[in-house]
Amino acid sequence: MTTIPHPDFSASRFLSAPDARFVAAPADGVLPEDFFSTTNLPTYVRVRGEWRLPREPRMDSALVVDRDGVLWVREMRRVRAGDLVAVGKKEDGSEGIYVNAEVAGGADNHEFKFMASEVSREKPVDYTHLANLLVQERERGGYIVWVTGPALVHSRARSDMTWFIQNGFASALLAGNAVAVHDIEASIFGTTLGMSGKGETTVGGHGLHMRAINKVRAAGSIAKAVEAGVITDGIMHACVKKNVPFVLCGSIRDDGPLPDVYTDAAEAQDAMKAHTTKATMAIMIATALHAIATGNMLPAFVMEPDGTLRELPTICVDSAEFVVGKLKDRGTHQAFGVVTNAQDFMHILRLFVERELDSRDVPVDGATSAAVAR
Amino acid sequence: MTTIPHPDFSASRFLSAPDARFVAAPADGVLPEDFFSTTNLPTYVRVRGEWRLPREPRMDSALVVDRDGVLWVREMRRVRAGDLVAVGKKEDGSEGIYVNAEVAGGADNHEFKFMASEVSREKPVDYTHLANLLVQERERGGYIVWVTGPALVHSRARSDMTWFIQNGFASALLAGNAVAVHDIEASIFGTTLGMSGKGETTVGGHGLHMRAINKVRAAGSIAKAVEAGVITDGIMHACVKKNVPFVLCGSIRDDGPLPDVYTDAAEAQDAMKAHTTKATMAIMIATALHAIATGNMLPAFVMEPDGTLRELPTICVDSAEFVVGKLKDRGTHQAFGVVTNAQDFMHILRLFVERELDSRDVPVDGATSAAVAR
Amino acid sequence: MTTIPHPDFSASRFLSAPDARFVAAPADGVLPEDFFSTTNLPTYVRVRGEWRLPREPRMDSALVVDRDGVLWVREMRRVRAGDLVAVGKKEDGSEGIYVNAEVAGGADNHEFKFMASEVSREKPVDYTHLANLLVQERERGGYIVWVTGPALVHSRARSDMTWFIQNGFASALLAGNAVAVHDIEASIFGTTLGMSGKGETTVGGHGLHMRAINKVRAAGSIAKAVEAGVITDGIMHACVKKNVPFVLCGSIRDDGPLPDVYTDAAEAQDAMKAHTTKATMAIMIATALHAIATGNMLPAFVMEPDGTLRELPTICVDSAEFVVGKLKDRGTHQAFGVVTNAQDFMHILRLFVERELDSRDVPVDGATSAAVAR
Amino acid sequence: MTTIPHPDFSASRFLSAPDARFVAAPADGVLPEDFFSTTNLPTYVRVRGEWRLPREPRMDSALVVDRDGVLWVREMRRVRAGDLVAVGKKEDGSEGIYVNAEVAGGADNHEFKFMASEVSREKPVDYTHLANLLVQERERGGYIVWVTGPALVHSRARSDMTWFIQNGFASALLAGNAVAVHDIEASIFGTTLGMSGKGETTVGGHGLHMRAINKVRAAGSIAKAVEAGVITDGIMHACVKKNVPFVLCGSIRDDGPLPDVYTDAAEAQDAMKAHTTKATMAIMIATALHAIATGNMLPAFVMEPDGTLRELPTICVDSAEFVVGKLKDRGTHQAFGVVTNAQDFMHILRLFVERELDSRDVPVDGATSAAVAR
Repeated sequence: MTTIPHPDFSASRFLSAPDARFVAAPADGVLPEDFFSTTNLPTYVRVRGEWRLPREPRMDSALVVDRDGVLWVREMRRVRAGDLVAVGKKEDGSEGIYVNAEVAGGADNHEFKFMASEVSREKPVDYTHLANLLVQERERGGYIVWVTGPALVHSRARSDMTWFIQNGFASALLAGNAVAVHDIEASIFGTTLGMSGKGETTVGGHGLHMRAINKVRAAGSIAKAVEAGVITDGIMHACVKKNVPFVLCGSIRDDGPLPDVYTDAAEAQDAMKAHTTKATMAIMIATALHAIATGNMLPAFVMEPDGTLRELPTICVDSAEFVVGKLKDRGTHQAFGVVTNAQDFMHILRLFVERELDSRDVPVDGATSAAVAR
Repeated sequence: MTTIPHPDFSASRFLSAPDARFVAAPADGVLPEDFFSTTNLPTYVRVRGEWRLPREPRMDSALVVDRDGVLWVREMRRVRAGDLVAVGKKEDGSEGIYVNAEVAGGADNHEFKFMASEVSREKPVDYTHLANLLVQERERGGYIVWVTGPALVHSRARSDMTWFIQNGFASALLAGNAVAVHDIEASIFGTTLGMSGKGETTVGGHGLHMRAINKVRAAGSIAKAVEAGVITDGIMHACVKKNVPFVLCGSIRDDGPLPDVYTDAAEAQDAMKAHTTKATMAIMIATALHAIATGNMLPAFVMEPDGTLRELPTICVDSAEFVVGKLKDRGTHQAFGVVTNAQDFMHILRLFVERELDSRDVPVDGATSAAVAR
Repeated sequence: MTTIPHPDFSASRFLSAPDARFVAAPADGVLPEDFFSTTNLPTYVRVRGEWRLPREPRMDSALVVDRDGVLWVREMRRVRAGDLVAVGKKEDGSEGIYVNAEVAGGADNHEFKFMASEVSREKPVDYTHLANLLVQERERGGYIVWVTGPALVHSRARSDMTWFIQNGFASALLAGNAVAVHDIEASIFGTTLGMSGKGETTVGGHGLHMRAINKVRAAGSIAKAVEAGVITDGIMHACVKKNVPFVLCGSIRDDGPLPDVYTDAAEAQDAMKAHTTKATMAIMIATALHAIATGNMLPAFVMEPDGTLRELPTICVDSAEFVVGKLKDRGTHQAFGVVTNAQDFMHILRLFVERELDSRDVPVDGATSAAVAR
Repeated sequence: MTTIPHPDFSASRFLSAPDARFVAAPADGVLPEDFFSTTNLPTYVRVRGEWRLPREPRMDSALVVDRDGVLWVREMRRVRAGDLVAVGKKEDGSEGIYVNAEVAGGADNHEFKFMASEVSREKPVDYTHLANLLVQERERGGYIVWVTGPALVHSRARSDMTWFIQNGFASALLAGNAVAVHDIEASIFGTTLGMSGKGETTVGGHGLHMRAINKVRAAGSIAKAVEAGVITDGIMHACVKKNVPFVLCGSIRDDGPLPDVYTDAAEAQDAMKAHTTKATMAIMIATALHAIATGNMLPAFVMEPDGTLRELPTICVDSAEFVVGKLKDRGTHQAFGVVTNAQDFMHILRLFVERELDSRDVPVDGATSAAVAR
């Protein structure tokens, strides 16, 4: 069992501290302004020169001294008018109250905090910041690598991903066979795995992705299927038309696969690395396998032309905290996690990028934009 | 072990069936158009009047007959030019191929399908449909009950929720102490549990929600705190200003609580039921406790003034499939699940509602809109 | 909006029905025995020959008729002594109460139910049944295919998996490079990814899996490393010693890889299929990629030597409902989902198998057991 | 964008460092023993007195110097026999290689690590340690508070929880109405929410929990229902028979509720706090609401009779990382998270406690054990 030593109260910071100050509660269940709000950590209160631990410690409560001079931690609702309540916001002893935060996990700052976890669905996503990053990278000629899983295509994010490709925000696309298969099924049949855009299953739908693969195999490659008019819109179509390189990595889950797929994992890694080596920003969406594979070969930093190093912005979007945690556990510490649905992420990100571009008066149409011309 | 009986091939549907048709594969790894795409279910192929089971059954493959008349299930990539491949899309025997789908779970339709689960993060969300429902309900004077958890306020959905209240899309708000506390902390201090809108923790932040509660307790109620200018914006402010009733239900997690909170669970249920009884639509966001409690007292149907019954649209939004599954497991079968982040859901839903209103030329400003005046 | 038609009360089943029976509540908040327990579905109660809908419908409550003959749905706690409460358990009208369950999702049984979802962490796991299946399959010479992810090795399930291999319960092991790498790192260094068996990170630990891979590459193969005494225990060691075939499938996440790994996805699929074609039972643990890949090539049924078909028992263990749901959404309807931690699953399953063997007086030591000798 | 400064190589630690040492690879794809294993962090290699950054940085690879003296990060599989590979395990420059780990998140130790996250389903659970803690606490007369959710009863953990109560390992039980309702339904009807112990739904099952509640309400209290023979086994039965105090806290989800339930949240908190104030260990299983409520009032430490403080062991078991993360985000930093299924956790924990007791020769039957007599 871990023992928590009492502080050495003979240290000068404690010797010079004043007694804690107490103020009467103005009404039943109401605390004086500037009341001290407790934590669950060992808390010492200086009363008549002596540092004391209050009874019944708990967080989110007040410190009350009773008529006998005994200190209690008491919930706001249980405080009565006239009760003497400790005031002060400092936890370092300088106002007569010392909180021993050594035990509070995060050793780097020794402070009691809420919401300190790094990745959580409860954390807000700063889309303005993300949109800014993307627009800046495009402007400075950065190399933005997108790593995507098939959920992106199942849901309605397909048109948003296509938009980012068409408008110069994707320097390379790393994905698996399934992303391309679903995207091409959507272009040819209007479904993904036989599910319509409204989420409904269709009759005979289970064979449609096989028919899509077969058509591309008959054409010889995705690019040839685009040329031949078999594929007329979507993510792969945009990559071909905009000359955005893509790497489709094979896996044991693959049907077909499409002719462009690297079935050898070592060759696939080499093809991916040709892009990760150039990356100045990485966005990973709805894929554990590809995100961790990319994280595995992605440096945590970028070297600028002038030799300075900077962090490589790495965004990882998933429905659960787990994937981002796993990515970090596999060494990609710099990953910024966004816990949400891929469809919604893409839609809002595009919206914010469009607003950012509007505010800069940059034309959105990729064909004429400076960023794409570059 | 469950035995799967062979079909009775003396039934007329089988007696009248033709032999399966085979077509030569046009190239290595390419199937003929209209190839039959296999499932993992028992599959019988009629060859020379005889129904046979092919060898090495698996899904997503082709049916090939070899020179010796033996049937094989074979992956597309392993088919060679000239191999004889079964064609046809019917699985009911009428084209010489019969798939026994009795074993495929969903007993209601007996068909092999992908993406048949009801709630999944991989399913697209039809925001157009949701926005339509909301606007229609507002127009017809429906009673839209919102049930929300605190994640809504932690993330940036606070302003979107406020907007829905201000514009007449909320007839009642059911929530817990925490939603109001975080919302009011945000109004007074700009933080939630001490976390800024950018997701950063602030010094001394852990006490801010207690200070917010204390100010409202001092004022006497949320409405009085609004009047007194203590609370100047946000969800609760909008409820007070727009006369949208709210029910704040107490729980054992509560700090404070705020003066408006029902601390007695039975009284809280009665207060909630006053609204669920009137509900014509329910939207539950980021809360297991309140969603299931509401589901518990919500009928699955609405009676129209003319006595006809219709389903009560019930939307349940959560980061994980689990809560929606639990809601259904507790009897709220009609719940439509959306697996996403509350912040993103609210932002996109508002966007789609605004577009819907634009297309109808309805003024959005609640103060002047017909819906609110009603 | 979906309309729910009223039943046709001129049908004979309704014409012959009696009035509902009402009994006085024996005390405040207590219902008579055999009270009717309500659902959230449209419910019709026959009173004086007339079918009526009660007011304020909700589930888990009682039906009360007031002095004016008005029907109410009322919570148990709100019922007063002497209130007249409907009794009866039938919902088909035969006791004067009819619940219209057509709207209750599951179209196959039309009954209001709790806990009807197929996969949930709230469902009990019948380990006795699973252990029975395993022992039976071993006895009858079945072909049990295990498909495992690396979490199995990270946690303490490694020794349990080894036990199943040593005792003849594994006919083949399908996994990725990582399973073998972690297992071999554990044998050589006592860590997995540098984490000790107690879950602590070790200094210099991040390189240990690379050193393990390097030693096996230097030896030439896993079997040679076992012979050379480099690998002395664990899962791969047991496979080599017991001649249990394994297929290690490469992926883009792999370090090394180990010399035995199939880096080509098509070759890997062929190697897997050699086992899935023979499978009479499949157990998939803690892997989305390999589980779905295996599901993709696994028939839903087994053909017995005598030509009868039976369901192929397919167990899928994962920490979240999502993977099992995804497996089903990809067509593997027969999968039985267990939502738990891989370590705990393996430990309890082994315990129950040991008990089953004890009760049958079968020796557990693989070397001498009949099952292994077979 | 965050810039990462280069180290000051004029510092003495760098001036005194040797050149990195390079050794020829013994074979294609095999590295020399003691090769340096790379990270994704900025890495400086001293060659001829000069600190250089290698090209194509990535983790899990080797450092190779080519004929022109250029440094490369290269995957093991791409190294050829005779290539010069850096050796050494130190990352602090003392062997000529310096890894700048300042950027690696966890500021407290500045080291590149895998598996550094605190809570993950991939982390092993040390049941031996947990069992030891429990047995020690019982021996020393500690106060073990159990906080449980209803999943414990749905699954088969009911008998294990009962065992812990009967054998003196529970000083108090904190739960909600549902835990007691399901437990009592199981005792009376053999089901929970109408689901059998094998996970199957039963006809008419949806009313059984209401009938169970009604019987206890008729009896007057849980204790009276035990006396009257209505409740004959299970968790609540054991609490009554063993005089283990329980606090059942009401919530808005409750049916009934049972007569013993505190419906007022403030009173419920007071009742809970009477136990948390005495707690020397806390175990929270399968409940977000009650775990966070308890965490809210639980100190992070215990004061021993002699005045020393020690950490209060707090175990939190849930199926997902989220609840433990949330508990920590609400300030309960000391919580040790176990990500697993409640049923399996209870079963294995009991098994390990039984083994621990066996090894100590302590009688398990609570009636005669010293711990219970105490």
